[in-house]
Amino acid sequence: MGFIILFGGNSYEHEISIVSSITLKKELKNISAFVFLDSSGSFYLISKENMKSKYFALLEYKKAPKLELTNGGFLQKSLMSKKILKGVVINLIHGKSGEDGQIAGILDFYNIRFIGPRLEASVLSFNKELTKIYAKNRNVKVLDYKILRKGDDYSNMDLTLPLILKPARLGSSIGISLIKDIDDIDYALDCAFEFDDTVVVESFIPDIKEYNLAGCIINDEFVFSTIEEIKKNEYLDFDKKYLDFATTKKLQEAQISNTLRDNIKNSFKKIYLNCFEGSLIRCDFFAINDEVFLNEINPIPGSMACYLFENFGGILNSLSINLPSNDVLNIQYKYISKIQAIKGK
Amino acid sequence: MGFIILFGGNSYEHEISIVSSITLKKELKNISAFVFLDSSGSFYLISKENMKSKYFALLEYKKAPKLELTNGGFLQKSLMSKKILKGVVINLIHGKSGEDGQIAGILDFYNIRFIGPRLEASVLSFNKELTKIYAKNRNVKVLDYKILRKGDDYSNMDLTLPLILKPARLGSSIGISLIKDIDDIDYALDCAFEFDDTVVVESFIPDIKEYNLAGCIINDEFVFSTIEEIKKNEYLDFDKKYLDFATTKKLQEAQISNTLRDNIKNSFKKIYLNCFEGSLIRCDFFAINDEVFLNEINPIPGSMACYLFENFGGILNSLSINLPSNDVLNIQYKYISKIQAIKGK
Repeated sequence: MGFIILFGGNSYEHEISIVSSITLKKELKNISAFVFLDSSGSFYLISKENMKSKYFALLEYKKAPKLELTNGGFLQKSLMSKKILKGVVINLIHGKSGEDGQIAGILDFYNIRFIGPRLEASVLSFNKELTKIYAKNRNVKVLDYKILRKGDDYSNMDLTLPLILKPARLGSSIGISLIKDIDDIDYALDCAFEFDDTVVVESFIPDIKEYNLAGCIINDEFVFSTIEEIKKNEYLDFDKKYLDFATTKKLQEAQISNTLRDNIKNSFKKIYLNCFEGSLIRCDFFAINDEVFLNEINPIPGSMACYLFENFGGILNSLSINLPSNDVLNIQYKYISKIQAIKGK
Repeated sequence: MGFIILFGGNSYEHEISIVSSITLKKELKNISAFVFLDSSGSFYLISKENMKSKYFALLEYKKAPKLELTNGGFLQKSLMSKKILKGVVINLIHGKSGEDGQIAGILDFYNIRFIGPRLEASVLSFNKELTKIYAKNRNVKVLDYKILRKGDDYSNMDLTLPLILKPARLGSSIGISLIKDIDDIDYALDCAFEFDDTVVVESFIPDIKEYNLAGCIINDEFVFSTIEEIKKNEYLDFDKKYLDFATTKKLQEAQISNTLRDNIKNSFKKIYLNCFEGSLIRCDFFAINDEVFLNEINPIPGSMACYLFENFGGILNSLSINLPSNDVLNIQYKYISKIQAIKGK
């Protein structure tokens, strides 16, 4: 049994997920199936040779065999036979449905083993407001921020320009605006509220350093990627990030002090431990001198951040045999029996 | 179309869920179906006359017709026909699987409308540690607490007796211990760690007042229940709470000051708003004089706290036509097309 790559989904990042899965096709040797989820909730089995962007852009996937969820895997029915696709799923559905916990809940419900964030981890990383309160509670610093909800009056809010506005629950820079002139804020809020009823407002620090680190826990030990320094043109927009996800080129380690490197790794550990087990995540940090601030958690990073690892395939194989278990309880109906006895029913 | 009562689940509170659903049978006139989820993940259609505790205790449900999830409802297949049960589901699965977000994710995925907490609300109320950091972030006070994880050394922890120990992710008093003698803490921790890897430790204040308030938002207005004062024998244990859920007797409003009443209602509003929409929840508060502290959020309270409402059926009907929507996105594949143009593929 190899990996089952699950991609697509009912998400603004649906297309990024397709690019991620095409990238993983090149990176992982032992993929046994590609399962595509369209935006309306149907699953399709995509053959390896059809794993090309054009195939999806032309909607040819609609001719592929349909799959259904069943206990232990994906069911492929034909007139003559039924077959269950089994294997460890890599949840590669970015954004809504994939990263908000819906797919995690479904895979757990159907007893399908998977690499990806579990329910709690999904909710805490998908909503940027929750990520901030979670990080602070774990003694990981975040930059100052304000929360705006639809209809809030921000005129008396203490806002120092320039600002960055982000919908609370979207990744890949969708709906994000950089505000240098306060007159632009109404339009930017309208854009952000198109995507979410909650907007996170942060000060934008033009020359702040940005570092990404990916990793996971295998056999109770942290496994880390290369630390990537983000070279940016102000901030990454959707197209730029999107094209980056298609890379398989390995990156050079950022040239930073040992103190900063330790601070980044320790912050990652505080975020990951007792929450993100079973997933390979990427944490994006800001740094001011050697002080580290969490920017965001990507629990299903673009292309699983494969370009940050020397031995990506080996790490995923090890992770796949170290997944959290999902116990089925043994219900004994002893309380029901007791209540019957008490009530005499 | 009436209500579909979904109950059972893979949870330590499986049996409480059965009692809750039997209670709702008496309280709600327009129930069109009872759907039982056993602990291994199979759905059964239970006839109204079989909605008795004995039927489940004797495992007779195994003879009932099986159901499958399908887009828009539950599918009942027979040799000759297929029928989809449609209606608004009342998620009445307490504890794990029902309150942790799994069922919410599944119902959303299959486009089944439901009364109950959505994914985020589930995760924030199911884990008592997250509930505390969420409440504090919303300016609702909580009592002081400490978090212990398996293997933590608590010998240097500042703990003042008496203490109450709770597994982070269980309701209905399961695994909870009251510690009056520090020598008892090892055994109590072993009990709690049977159920969860995280334990919340709180000071126990013997004569603290305790009040429960249930409610929801309908048409942008809060609808509140009677405020219940908990008369307790130290603290409620599993059996006591369990029997209480079977009541349909209406309760008298607690005799409290207007200030305390306002503080309880305002705290409820801060917790509910922009998170619990679509659900009828019960918040349990402590009070010291007129100061209010959140104890816990029950997003699927026993019997939906029907005994706290004068017009329970009417409220549930109104809530069922005011549920959050779950949009399907229109994916246009324009980024995929752009990447093809750039890469010349």
